[in-house]
Amino acid sequence: MNFVAALNDTAAKNLQVLEENIKQSIAEDPFVFEACAPLIRGGKRLRPMLFLLCANAKKDLPPEKTMPLATALELIHTASLVHDDIIDTSKKRRGVETANSKYGAQIAVLVGDYLFAKAFQLVAENNYDSQVQLILSNLVKNLCVGEIMQDRSLFAVPTMSEYYTHINLKTAIFLSSCCRLGAIAAEMNSREIENLTAYGSGLGLAFQIIDDLLDFFGDERITGKPHGGDLKSGVITLPVIRALEISDAAQTLKKIVTRGEITKTEIDAAIKIIRATDAVDYCRTRAEAHIESARVNLPATLKISIALALEKIADFVVDRTR
Amino acid sequence: MNFVAALNDTAAKNLQVLEENIKQSIAEDPFVFEACAPLIRGGKRLRPMLFLLCANAKKDLPPEKTMPLATALELIHTASLVHDDIIDTSKKRRGVETANSKYGAQIAVLVGDYLFAKAFQLVAENNYDSQVQLILSNLVKNLCVGEIMQDRSLFAVPTMSEYYTHINLKTAIFLSSCCRLGAIAAEMNSREIENLTAYGSGLGLAFQIIDDLLDFFGDERITGKPHGGDLKSGVITLPVIRALEISDAAQTLKKIVTRGEITKTEIDAAIKIIRATDAVDYCRTRAEAHIESARVNLPATLKISIALALEKIADFVVDRTR
Repeated sequence: MNFVAALNDTAAKNLQVLEENIKQSIAEDPFVFEACAPLIRGGKRLRPMLFLLCANAKKDLPPEKTMPLATALELIHTASLVHDDIIDTSKKRRGVETANSKYGAQIAVLVGDYLFAKAFQLVAENNYDSQVQLILSNLVKNLCVGEIMQDRSLFAVPTMSEYYTHINLKTAIFLSSCCRLGAIAAEMNSREIENLTAYGSGLGLAFQIIDDLLDFFGDERITGKPHGGDLKSGVITLPVIRALEISDAAQTLKKIVTRGEITKTEIDAAIKIIRATDAVDYCRTRAEAHIESARVNLPATLKISIALALEKIADFVVDRTR
Repeated sequence: MNFVAALNDTAAKNLQVLEENIKQSIAEDPFVFEACAPLIRGGKRLRPMLFLLCANAKKDLPPEKTMPLATALELIHTASLVHDDIIDTSKKRRGVETANSKYGAQIAVLVGDYLFAKAFQLVAENNYDSQVQLILSNLVKNLCVGEIMQDRSLFAVPTMSEYYTHINLKTAIFLSSCCRLGAIAAEMNSREIENLTAYGSGLGLAFQIIDDLLDFFGDERITGKPHGGDLKSGVITLPVIRALEISDAAQTLKKIVTRGEITKTEIDAAIKIIRATDAVDYCRTRAEAHIESARVNLPATLKISIALALEKIADFVVDRTR
């Protein structure tokens, strides 16, 4: 079951309406529908649900005010996943074959572009103001800059600060923008808006750190991916950065992760080296600190049901197994 | 020299300001600038110049009102070229190595996404209204649908009507949207807006037909591309469609263009078959008819200098050699 449905009844109901809206948003062109429908299915809907929870945190807004933007956020997220998969060796995403693997790179590029354009169209035709457009276009831009930076430094060990820049651009800004857009929709005051933005940012940093950890140590039956996928594609993340700082075998680990090609045996060796250090605890502690910062930033002025739901999402982010 | 600079002094001045704006629009991130700058250079700037001419067709608008949108139009066009090149075998675009060939497909995808996002950001932060956003997002969507349709039917002979759908979605809607946005910026009445939209549409259809013709018969020293590039990548265009209708060697031609692989010798054979028919004249006649329709749609209420410039652009489209 989707974790959001478990939050509370309103969230479950909103999620249902959202699913319908997402489906309709891609129904215009039959081929686009055929290509997108499997990709759209089965996401966690974390981003639109964060927006919807924040938007309804003071009083329930009519769905026609919130659903187009919620849908746009999920379309942008899906578009970025489709484009991520272009080179990514993984042939599956959300449990189904990627657009790239099924239709080829060119179609995958175009389907992603279509989803981006559709997102901006939804926002334009529902008369959201230019502040909303600006937050959306900025978040897509930041997403791209984050991915470009990461792609430019494959098989190179980032500094801690570079790692944080990547995950901020790639994930935290997206999640914090969802919360910010919700707070704006709810007509909160500027302090509440900043606080919910900070909540989303802490959530996003923790989310990405846990994601990076799960890539090494997640339950493969649940993640559906073999361990060390990031390493294989040259993306060096926090567990490695930490292990390189303190492991006796740092030289060996560094050789493995920076050589540019990496075998299954080497991935296993790298994981063994990382596991022998405090890297797992270190990552968990960092993630928990970001979640704590998210939590303390939750305004006390929200409806209790929403505050609880946002707390539960924070729990989910550090406790999740995929 | 850029053809637009030859139109009149105001156009030449506007073009200069536009070039500066385009350069600044990608200057924010150093790597994006490095990757985009060569791609941005050397375009014809047909789309933003159409917008600027129409926008200034009643009286000169202040550049701060028009330049952000003009820049956004060129960024969208460039983004679509970058994404086109992902699979396209051509390693050069606008005379320089493509982003794909230089940095790899993933970076090319992301740079294109960045340019799309930057375009929407420019529009959002300069307070263009949601009508503008809607026209822009629709044009990107149509561009994608057109390309998707084309990519889905590679090495298959389209009907005449399918061909027209492709070139309408791919090119005519873009050019007509530029004119429409200009007419709206100039606060023209609805009849003038529709007429300028029709001008852009006729121009776009003619432009694409001539493009498709030049792909077979253009001066290779000027186009910089070997003949038959479309055929090689499976895109079957008007010259072939026409030749298949009337050539005695239609069966041979059909075999060549639909087999899925095509040698240099076969391309030469195909060109010989096409040239033996009336296909070249046929395409020119069609293009000229669309240009004529563009011309008659030019409202009589425009400033004479602008009307003349738009006429010259119409001439350029059918007379150009690349």
